[in-house]
Amino acid sequence: MLTQISNLKEGKVKFSGMIETVRDKKNIQFVVLKDFSGKIQVTIDKVAHPEIGEVFSHLLTGSTVTVTGELVKSEFVKMGGQEILADSVEVTSSAEVYPIGPESSLDQRIDYRWLDLRQEKNILMFKVQTLFTKALRDFLEEKDFIEIHSPKLIGAASESGADVFEVKYFDTKAYLAQSPQFYKQMAMSSGFGRIFECGPVFRAEKSHSRKHATEFTGFDLEFTGIESYEDVMKLEEEMIAYALKVVKEKYGEQIKEVFGVEVVVPSLPFPRIKLSELYKELKKRYGYVVLEEEKDDLSTEAEKLCEKFSMEAYGSEFLFVTDYGAKNRAFYHLRKDGVPQGYDLIWKGVEITTGAQREHRYEILKQQAKEKGLEKDVEFYLQFFKYGCPPHGGFGIGVDRMTMNLLNIPTIKEVMFIFRGPDRLTP
Amino acid sequence: MLTQISNLKEGKVKFSGMIETVRDKKNIQFVVLKDFSGKIQVTIDKVAHPEIGEVFSHLLTGSTVTVTGELVKSEFVKMGGQEILADSVEVTSSAEVYPIGPESSLDQRIDYRWLDLRQEKNILMFKVQTLFTKALRDFLEEKDFIEIHSPKLIGAASESGADVFEVKYFDTKAYLAQSPQFYKQMAMSSGFGRIFECGPVFRAEKSHSRKHATEFTGFDLEFTGIESYEDVMKLEEEMIAYALKVVKEKYGEQIKEVFGVEVVVPSLPFPRIKLSELYKELKKRYGYVVLEEEKDDLSTEAEKLCEKFSMEAYGSEFLFVTDYGAKNRAFYHLRKDGVPQGYDLIWKGVEITTGAQREHRYEILKQQAKEKGLEKDVEFYLQFFKYGCPPHGGFGIGVDRMTMNLLNIPTIKEVMFIFRGPDRLTP
Repeated sequence: MLTQISNLKEGKVKFSGMIETVRDKKNIQFVVLKDFSGKIQVTIDKVAHPEIGEVFSHLLTGSTVTVTGELVKSEFVKMGGQEILADSVEVTSSAEVYPIGPESSLDQRIDYRWLDLRQEKNILMFKVQTLFTKALRDFLEEKDFIEIHSPKLIGAASESGADVFEVKYFDTKAYLAQSPQFYKQMAMSSGFGRIFECGPVFRAEKSHSRKHATEFTGFDLEFTGIESYEDVMKLEEEMIAYALKVVKEKYGEQIKEVFGVEVVVPSLPFPRIKLSELYKELKKRYGYVVLEEEKDDLSTEAEKLCEKFSMEAYGSEFLFVTDYGAKNRAFYHLRKDGVPQGYDLIWKGVEITTGAQREHRYEILKQQAKEKGLEKDVEFYLQFFKYGCPPHGGFGIGVDRMTMNLLNIPTIKEVMFIFRGPDRLTP
Repeated sequence: MLTQISNLKEGKVKFSGMIETVRDKKNIQFVVLKDFSGKIQVTIDKVAHPEIGEVFSHLLTGSTVTVTGELVKSEFVKMGGQEILADSVEVTSSAEVYPIGPESSLDQRIDYRWLDLRQEKNILMFKVQTLFTKALRDFLEEKDFIEIHSPKLIGAASESGADVFEVKYFDTKAYLAQSPQFYKQMAMSSGFGRIFECGPVFRAEKSHSRKHATEFTGFDLEFTGIESYEDVMKLEEEMIAYALKVVKEKYGEQIKEVFGVEVVVPSLPFPRIKLSELYKELKKRYGYVVLEEEKDDLSTEAEKLCEKFSMEAYGSEFLFVTDYGAKNRAFYHLRKDGVPQGYDLIWKGVEITTGAQREHRYEILKQQAKEKGLEKDVEFYLQFFKYGCPPHGGFGIGVDRMTMNLLNIPTIKEVMFIFRGPDRLTP
């Protein structure tokens, strides 16, 4: 293995990097090379090594080289106070002229996503997401959560029947799972106790909003031993606070510098408010009046206002909203006196999670599915509850939306490794 | 949150569990309850609490209850030397009679997979897999690998064009990714340096072998800074040895007890042998002669013989086989004097990985794709290499196959949370 740039030591070195810039002077050349760990200046004495100068003067940004030379400290070099005095170079790949630049539109940049991702801020974004997700997993694994990989190919259209992609499956049809919800709950019936899954979810929605994608990464969990959905919220707030703490420790400074965002480790517990109370507060404070037909659900405008309200009322970026109307909540939420025992978690005015205690009793679950006209569609799922199932609850987080919110990135297209939308199947 | 069984302490307790057995005597009842963490005996004094006895005498295996009572030590109880003297019970779910039993066929058991998974050995299997996968991730994250989530919906049939599922994607067609190969390499072009991904891969193969599934979990990685595929093998052997060490430490004893398998932490380096040398050895030692048309690839029988050979010749469960013929290797493997710079890793006579240094130079890669007749199919992928790309390599591991091999489980159907095959889309 070659050493990465961030680990180079003084003396003779050999390493590989991608050309960022070449500055050509009469007798000297300054080349900036980078890899995933950092950047370094390579200096070529064109008098002593005309052949190296010749090579670099013909290479474009993006080309890759392996250079050997002497790594020396230098007070004249801004970049880390060091440079490599090259004595040989091997070209490992030659780049053509970039078809996109700083003036390109978002769509053009996504056409050439692999070049767009070369920006330092994008690589930092994925480092942050990697650590954030790792922290979620670590938090759960420490509590004996089991990782599952539920099937994405399913035999029946799930949950609602709408918005599902159809797959040609040999001589029959399959569908792509909209969420691992049904299988997470199956694991509860199987006695797994505590499980999580991180994987793709598919939504055949023809939406072009800044928050929607037809494929994205879900982080889902489910667990038994709860006494109410209060236990679910408790686990979620602790998990998120832990992950943000881990991210802030390692990347807080860089995130501030590159994205201009202060990572705030939230204090616990997160504030909780009932939906009807929230609407009263929004009216009282900001004169916002919800439409009668929207009052059982969180309206788009109210969701945005949550950011201001939550900061003003509680000094918190996070807000749990509870006691939604049953009409707009999934049939599998457990109800108490008709009220779904679940919540949405709003972070900086964006809903990032829906969580709930689930209905685990076969007869009641069947009845609730029937009310929504889903009895047939979810027949296979109802079977999971026929042979006993302990009380349980859980929630799901969109990993991409979390990263978007964490770094204040305006659209999900910028945050996904490769974005997929109704008109976007490439690259 | 309720306490889990493994954490109960002497004194007053309240906890939830699933009924495993009820033994009814005249004045006393013994109930075994379990959750994901363990089992406990609940003892009911039917004279003092006839109402509790009444409840349990009507509940079937699989039903769930919340019990309160006194946890006491008892030398008469085999199960952990303790029991709960119940003073109240709440039924949280009632089970019907199980439709499967120990005499059921594998297919019947999979029809009711959620009940089949209730077996202790199955829950252990997933605990082991969770830890194994965690160890792989920890090993890589410590080395600054970035986690990516590459798209599973792709615009063009990948790699070979065959064996791909077709998806109805609004007014057009999409396909399900057969592997993250192309996007892993895209990340190399993007300068991510070191990446991994754990996610589903889809294969439209009409195979009913014990090793095939139409959907399974792949653990894939790719990295730069390599000088040859020797660096790729080195990383892989270190990673696997680390993960097996972690698994052995925590679950070695249980695995031996439940699966009868001794987890062996392999010593490094794993033995390496060229394919042609391997065939010479198999002939010399076991009289095995490979068919002329199979000699550029590892034949099924030779793969099996590797187990015996590797133990006898090197005392190793693992064996790297290198120097395959170019005809049967992917076009994206880098070649040196016509020989693909890659390998297969064989563990206990089963191929668990293909790895290689990749071809990173646009013109050569294009030529190699053309030779296989894939130039058109992989056009989008070739673009990733037009603007420079550092030398890199990587490999992929089937998570389910690893678990299968680790625990000596005869078929992949038993190892997957939910199996998917040509005739199997449920549950």
